[in-house]
This record gives sequence, C-alpha cells and structure tokens, in this order.
Amino acid sequence: MTEQILAKPFLDVLRGQRELVPPIWMMRQAGRYLPEYREVRAKAGGFLDLCFTPEFATEVTLQPIRRFNFDAAIIFSDILVIPYALGRAVRFEVGEGPRLDPLDTPDKIATLKPDADFSKLEPVFEALRRVRAELAPKIALIGFCGAPWTVATYMVAGQGTPDQAPARMLAYRHPEAFATIIDALVENSIEYLVGQLKAGADVLQIFDTWAGVLPPREFQRWSIEPTRRIVMGVRARVPDAKIIGFPRGAGALLPAYVDATGVDAVSIDWAAEPSLIRERVQSKVAVQGNLDPLALIAGGTALDRAIDDVLENYGRGRLIFNLGHGILPETPIAHVEQMIRRVRDYRS
Amino acid sequence: MTEQILAKPFLDVLRGQRELVPPIWMMRQAGRYLPEYREVRAKAGGFLDLCFTPEFATEVTLQPIRRFNFDAAIIFSDILVIPYALGRAVRFEVGEGPRLDPLDTPDKIATLKPDADFSKLEPVFEALRRVRAELAPKIALIGFCGAPWTVATYMVAGQGTPDQAPARMLAYRHPEAFATIIDALVENSIEYLVGQLKAGADVLQIFDTWAGVLPPREFQRWSIEPTRRIVMGVRARVPDAKIIGFPRGAGALLPAYVDATGVDAVSIDWAAEPSLIRERVQSKVAVQGNLDPLALIAGGTALDRAIDDVLENYGRGRLIFNLGHGILPETPIAHVEQMIRRVRDYRS
Repeated sequence: MTEQILAKPFLDVLRGQRELVPPIWMMRQAGRYLPEYREVRAKAGGFLDLCFTPEFATEVTLQPIRRFNFDAAIIFSDILVIPYALGRAVRFEVGEGPRLDPLDTPDKIATLKPDADFSKLEPVFEALRRVRAELAPKIALIGFCGAPWTVATYMVAGQGTPDQAPARMLAYRHPEAFATIIDALVENSIEYLVGQLKAGADVLQIFDTWAGVLPPREFQRWSIEPTRRIVMGVRARVPDAKIIGFPRGAGALLPAYVDATGVDAVSIDWAAEPSLIRERVQSKVAVQGNLDPLALIAGGTALDRAIDDVLENYGRGRLIFNLGHGILPETPIAHVEQMIRRVRDYRS
Repeated sequence: MTEQILAKPFLDVLRGQRELVPPIWMMRQAGRYLPEYREVRAKAGGFLDLCFTPEFATEVTLQPIRRFNFDAAIIFSDILVIPYALGRAVRFEVGEGPRLDPLDTPDKIATLKPDADFSKLEPVFEALRRVRAELAPKIALIGFCGAPWTVATYMVAGQGTPDQAPARMLAYRHPEAFATIIDALVENSIEYLVGQLKAGADVLQIFDTWAGVLPPREFQRWSIEPTRRIVMGVRARVPDAKIIGFPRGAGALLPAYVDATGVDAVSIDWAAEPSLIRERVQSKVAVQGNLDPLALIAGGTALDRAIDDVLENYGRGRLIFNLGHGILPETPIAHVEQMIRRVRDYRS
C-alpha cells in the first residue's frame, strides 16, 4: 500500500526507527471532549448510527486531526461492531455503557454463528476510504478491533462489569464453550482487520482493555494466544501489516505478550513500570503511551511533570506519545494543546 | 510477645523459614460465605456494630478457625475505622459499599483533625485480647489497617469508585492538601497498629487495595513512602514487628515496594507474573497468595489447576497460601475444603 510508505513519522517508528520528536495521537481522540464531535453526535442519533454512517464517521475521525494536527487518525468505530456483525444485539444507552444479550451458558453459546455478515461493516470500510482520501499522506490512519478476550467479556456479561467476572467464571467452568466464542472472534477479526487495511488503514491496533484481570495461565490462553493468531492471520494475507497491541493492565506479563504475539508495538497503560518496559519491551518493539488521562484533566505543573515522565522514561527509545487510556470527556482542550506543545518541543 | 514465639508455622515463614506445607488462611475469611457469620451479622445490626462489639467481633474472627483450622486468624474489622476515629462520618449501607462525607477540597481537608480518638477503637483492641486468649498458640493472629493511599481514596471520594479518580485528581491538583490526609493516616495508623500488637496481634497486614491505579511517581509518593513510614514507625516501638504489605495491582512496581518499605512479606494478587515475583520479590521476602477468588467459586478441576499453579509457582520458596483478593460471598464451603485439603496434601 502506497500510503504505508508515505505515512511518516508514525510508521517509521513502527518500522524500527526512533523519531527525535515522538509522533503523537490520543486514544479516543474523536470524542466528547470536542464540541465539534458533540455536534455531529447529536445529529447522528444513536452511537451505532454514528459508527455506521460514513459521512459522520469520516467527519469525527478527521476533527482532531484538523484541530491538533496529530500524527495519526484512528477510524471512529467501536470494538463491539464484530459481535454486531455476528448477529448479536448491541445497544448503546445514553449515560450507560454498551448492552448485549448475555451469552453466558454453553447452550446459548452453541447458537452463535461462526461467520460475521461483513456487509454490515461496509460503512466502516467506506469511512476508512473517505478518511484516507482526505488525510494528508504523512498522517497515519489506524484501523482497529477489540481483542477476542475483551470483546468476549462483553458478549458473555452483556455489559461491562468491575472486573469482568462473568467471562472469567465462564472460562473456568466451560473452557470449551468459551473457546468457541474466542475462535469466532479470532477468525472474524482477521477478516475485519484485513478489510480495514484494504480500505486504507496504514496500521492496526488490537485493544485488550480487560487483559489485566487474567491470571498468567488464562492470560496466555485468552489474551496472548488469540492475539498471536490474529497477527499471524493478518500477516498471512498482508505480510507487511503493522500491528499495535494494547493488553491494558498486563503489568509484568507484557514481555511475554510481546515475545509471543509478534506485534510491532504495544500501548502501555499509565501504571506501567519504566525499567521493565525499557529493558524487556522497548528493546524489541515500539512503545506507545502512557500519560495518565487524569493528569491531562488536572493540567498545570502536574501535567507538565507527567508529560516529562513519559518522555524521560521512554523518549530515548522508539516512542509514540499517547495516553495510558482514552481521553475523558471532561478534559479541557487547552490542556491537550499544552500537551502537544510540550511533546513537540521535546528534544532528548 | 510470647505469642510470637508460639504462633508457628505462620510466623516461621515471615521470619525466613520455608515450610514444607505452606500455612494457609484467606483474606475476608470471616465473611458472608459462612452461615454462622450471617447469623451473627444479623444479630449485630449494622456493620460497624459488628466491628465494635467485642463479643461479636471475637466470635466471627474465630468461626473460620474452628471450621477450617486455618493457620492464621485476622481480626474482624475494617480499614475505615481510622477515618471513623478521626471523626469522619462512616456509614455502611446494605448492598452498597461504605459511604463517607467527601473530603474533596483543600478547605474541607483543612478541617481534618490530626489525632484519632483511640477510645473509639478500644473495642477492636478488646476483641484482639479475647481472640488471642481463645486461639491455640500455634495459630497466628493478624491485625491490620488500610494503607494511607487506599484509605484516603475513600475519604476523598466518600465511596469506592471504579478507579478512585477523585483522589488521584486531588493528588494531582492539590498535592500539599492531599499530603495532610496521608500524614494524618500515617501517624494514626502507626498508633493503631502498635495498639493491635499490644492487644495480642502477632502479625500486621497493610492493605493497599487501590495501589494499582497509580503511575510510578505517584505510587512512590502515595503508596511506597507512607507505607515505609508506617513500617519504620511501628518498628521504632516494637522492633521485631512482623508486617505484610498488600499493594494490590502493583505489578512490576512490586520489587521497588518491597525494597523500600521493609515489609517482611507481600500479598500478591492473582494477576502477578510468577518469574518476576520469584526472582525479585520472593528472593527477599515471603509471598502470600494468590488464588483467583473466582477459581474458588468455580471449583472442580479448574480450582485444582489454579491451586497447583500457586503451589508450583511459589511453593519452592517462602509461601503463605491465600487468595489473590478477599473470598466472595457466593463461594461454596465445599470448595474451601477442597482447597485446604489440596494445599495440605502438597509436598514440593
């Protein structure tokens, strides 16, 4: 893909080169902290209407690029579009999280169709094409999916819970049944990610938001192994595909994740321990992160110090500057500007 | 204290000796999964009435020892008794967590009294004396407090929240004001823990349930440093005091915690990474943990395998077998018995 050659400096970092000024973007950068987003959101109706109307999805994807000139755009979508394409009911209710029909017994799981209806995801591909066409060549376009474990936690519980106990319990009690959900997600995520690359994505990110609740054996089986299969499956069809993993909360399990999955970079959360990351992660792959989103809300000297910590901890290696998790709706835009200035003025 | 010499094998592990059969107890072992606990709980009225009535607190502390013959009893109490003794309103509402009047501005924090009224905690000391008198000498009695960071998160927010954002935000915006809460908690926790040792506790545990939400700099300042001050302060008055730390979710920050605080042992959560723990934690202190409480609910072969993982990961070093967090109310008693049999039959 020609775009991959052009989309510097973001892709250079994934390809093995350190940038003097780290590329920067923010998880959930197309979001409620932006007035222009809230305006489109109000027009679109429901959250899924926003995801599945290419005109709207394109617009909100581009908004943070126009305003902040970030080094990467991430397609506006949601990790639950795969269960949706698998025929599961997915609803987003205002002020609550997502709601699905729980898939919490082996009998219910047996009804799950193995193949997604990809025509339902065509609007995402169309939005990617439109964004890529409008985006300056030097800006990377990121496609994404949820990791099977994280998507499965929502499919099993029907919603988010404090530590995703329902899926963990099902995986203990009925590992074979649970594996059929994971397998369906692996296969369809490969297809979906390849589709996103074909539609113009330069890079892919796999969000495993709930990886941190798993004990080591389960982390290996339900986070590392399915992610490894996705990375291999995508590369079997797009050999030079660049992939970022984000097993949030993996802590000291992160080196094993990096070694086994074959990702080109990992996103790290704000609680990561710097020397472990430098010695056993950044020595092998690029690192993306990891400002505490609360520091971005706090602003002032606390924000400057938190930014400097990220730059000093990871700036001597391959770094993509980002938050440790998504930006929160109450974040002042002036603080985002303060962050971007400070990162772009940085010279290690 | 004579009891410390007698309370083997638990104390032997803390003193540096590996036991062939690891001592075993469970966090929250006096709890709602036991019918005899629910009976006393119903008689006592409110949760704080249960904590502050020595007759009831003694009874529920001893119940799991009688039923399971654990190697340690932990005094029935709560980490919020210190804010209570500091004059803060603390309520436990049925089916909800604790509720306090939020201390979320510098002005409100300025009204906090520095000294607890320890007469309010006399019932806890009395319960410790009664438990120690009834407990077989070989069984250890554990006193405890919450770590200042964790207690402060509840005092600031007035309740538990998904990632204790209110306290993290206050600490970013008003670190000096936040430090006055921490300082009050450090000083009064030292006094409280020394009081517990004098009343018959053989060991102390410091619960830092919310340590895992802190970035490294904040972890150092708000978790490690106050815990270090408590350990030093207690040992200044009781030189041979044995102390277990539990910075839940500390991940790869755990070795720094162990090195700096001077604790004799750490409790580890179920997501800990075994090689890091063995090489950089268990090489220095005893390790307590770390069965996933959900595996204990699941039972069957999943439970056996999870128990074996703990024993194989940590059984060749100094291990106190425990859960990675408190036992959950829906846990079947038969599964607890299955766990105890398997651990006590274990020979490494």
